[in-house]
Amino acid sequence: MAIVVQKYGGSSVADAEKIKNVARRIAQAKDKGNDVVAVVSAMGDTTDELVELAYLVTDQPSEREFDVLLSTGEIVSSTLLAMALRTMGYEAISLSGAQAGIRTDAVYSRARIVGVDPVRIVGELDKGRIVIVAGFQGVTEEMDTTTLGRGGSDTTAVALAVSLGAEVCQIYTDVEGVYTADPRLVPEAKKLAEIGYEEMLELASYGAKVMHPRAVELGELFNMPILVASSFTDSPGTLIHGGEAMEVRNKVTSIAHDLDVAKITIVGVPDQPGVAAAIFEPLAKANISVDTIVQNASINNITDLTFTVARSQLRKAMEVVQPICRSIGAGDCLSDAGLGKVSIIGTGMQNTPGFAARMFSALSEQGINIQLISTSEIRITCIIAEDKVKDAVKALHRAFELEE
Amino acid sequence: MAIVVQKYGGSSVADAEKIKNVARRIAQAKDKGNDVVAVVSAMGDTTDELVELAYLVTDQPSEREFDVLLSTGEIVSSTLLAMALRTMGYEAISLSGAQAGIRTDAVYSRARIVGVDPVRIVGELDKGRIVIVAGFQGVTEEMDTTTLGRGGSDTTAVALAVSLGAEVCQIYTDVEGVYTADPRLVPEAKKLAEIGYEEMLELASYGAKVMHPRAVELGELFNMPILVASSFTDSPGTLIHGGEAMEVRNKVTSIAHDLDVAKITIVGVPDQPGVAAAIFEPLAKANISVDTIVQNASINNITDLTFTVARSQLRKAMEVVQPICRSIGAGDCLSDAGLGKVSIIGTGMQNTPGFAARMFSALSEQGINIQLISTSEIRITCIIAEDKVKDAVKALHRAFELEE
Repeated sequence: MAIVVQKYGGSSVADAEKIKNVARRIAQAKDKGNDVVAVVSAMGDTTDELVELAYLVTDQPSEREFDVLLSTGEIVSSTLLAMALRTMGYEAISLSGAQAGIRTDAVYSRARIVGVDPVRIVGELDKGRIVIVAGFQGVTEEMDTTTLGRGGSDTTAVALAVSLGAEVCQIYTDVEGVYTADPRLVPEAKKLAEIGYEEMLELASYGAKVMHPRAVELGELFNMPILVASSFTDSPGTLIHGGEAMEVRNKVTSIAHDLDVAKITIVGVPDQPGVAAAIFEPLAKANISVDTIVQNASINNITDLTFTVARSQLRKAMEVVQPICRSIGAGDCLSDAGLGKVSIIGTGMQNTPGFAARMFSALSEQGINIQLISTSEIRITCIIAEDKVKDAVKALHRAFELEE
Repeated sequence: MAIVVQKYGGSSVADAEKIKNVARRIAQAKDKGNDVVAVVSAMGDTTDELVELAYLVTDQPSEREFDVLLSTGEIVSSTLLAMALRTMGYEAISLSGAQAGIRTDAVYSRARIVGVDPVRIVGELDKGRIVIVAGFQGVTEEMDTTTLGRGGSDTTAVALAVSLGAEVCQIYTDVEGVYTADPRLVPEAKKLAEIGYEEMLELASYGAKVMHPRAVELGELFNMPILVASSFTDSPGTLIHGGEAMEVRNKVTSIAHDLDVAKITIVGVPDQPGVAAAIFEPLAKANISVDTIVQNASINNITDLTFTVARSQLRKAMEVVQPICRSIGAGDCLSDAGLGKVSIIGTGMQNTPGFAARMFSALSEQGINIQLISTSEIRITCIIAEDKVKDAVKALHRAFELEE
């Protein structure tokens, strides 16, 4: 019997009616003769409510206790889902992360899965039961509860799919799949039937709204196909996988964007070994994620260095960078908070000329100024003014004929 | 270092402010040099809300899943309490019933504790930590969560106190202790400094509002002194214990009452072996608790049999009893739902004449008709009309000079 692992997000189980709906979908998968394991997130706003509760008690909640507190949200939804299935006449049982064998390190609030011991799950499946697993949580060697942080339930699902040898990991959410661009920006955007792991990862923040990169990376590592689909419709969704067919397509598959970009430029940096490290090591230590980094060719051993960070981290980043500017003898340190990012994504881009040129001319036709450019094997990204992002996404969607 | 086990009920941790208040009380006990273990109930109405949630999903929740669902209530309050203590600078850690080693049978929703393995608790105490235990829950041999049913958190606390060799189990609640009568009925009622286990048990429904009989029985079994006190004041409370001083007091200590009494009388029962069993076995099988049973002396081998049940169970009890009446050839089966119970409680009652007489005359002076009488070694109970109960309690409180 094939094992199917499904995951249902918080909006899919937001109330009793939605839980019953999800139960029906799980039952369908069981009726098709599969062994079914369903990973479930906390209901709707439950996690936010628990966070609020903690902050009513203290403004510095213990991380260990916070994790135990938050983990109750997924336990509640998993029991309700198991109850709904039993009422429909299906044998179902809920398991906590600990019972499901999700073993993690002890880094509370963002624990990493170190292994999965699905003995209990296998035992329950052998009894013919549907197994509902509380997502987002695991257990340390000392049997203390941890939470997995962002993307935790997606990651639970992929990890279980891998360890159980499932054929596919199905992620059911409130969108119907991955589109050629964010449908809220580009109404003509089309749903993709399939996408490669790397392309999905390059979708960055738009893609992350569909599925967390961490879970996609795990899927890629173990070559586990991941189906992303809606829990509210029967529409087929998008299959994220690593099949060979993709390698040779040589075309742009989607347009990604990000509205949350701030830029810092250090002017007049002496071009000598160790300077980049002197700047980026303190930023890393301050836990600031640096995104795009661009260094211009140096003239007279003086160069300019520009990098981007999330807008919310700009102030902190400037506080770290300014004293460094002075100590390395750089000229000035400028920042701009009003930026956005637009990317074209597709395989074989670097081997095929013309993609970049078409992108730049499409932007230029809209009168959009490109501030920074960065590229990867399957992505070309331009940093532009935030208020131009929407126009840029639309123009690129047209230019690469994605609506067809 | 002495080990103190404390228990805080749901009303004591109903909101963030109350949780902080409880944290301060626990800190005080720690500051006095004790090792402190605190058992906590779910916040205020949490359990009711979780029950409601389950019934939105199904009208027949799986018992196994229901227990896991309900157990999250105590986990939430235990983590918040641990957070509050840590914020105050105390090392504290929350443990679930499973982590605390509360092992139970697998009778969901009313599991019995079969043993306590407090290894983890002892380890945490050895590290100097305050241990907060989620009450009302345990774990089966298969590591499945159970709940202990009514009085579960009180029972958790007493069981832990016994297994840890604590000096005393302190139950903090929303009343200041055990009174000579229900203070809502008798404003002059006085708080008792101490009371025996048996006397406490005989307080029945009034006593159960203070502390569940099940936990008192466990305390008696292992001779664990139990202090009942308010979590909102520093008033000394009532110590429930089995000390010898009580045995010789020979006085009425308190007046108990119950407003929820219904009576069934079977008239003209043939007085032969097996008749009582024929009536009460089917009632037990139907899960109906029979309280007082009175059988009159038989005349011509015909007797009357009267017993009481909770009002909510009267209809079901009549449905069970009526066919039996016919099959055993009894005359008639009568019921009265409008009754109450009033009891005087004290040690040495049966060895000292005059208690019963004083009780009956006090009731008679109020014009109160006694319908049934039953006695134990430390209790005399009269079943009377429900609307006379309040007057009866007041009159008896006066007659036995309990306000002094």
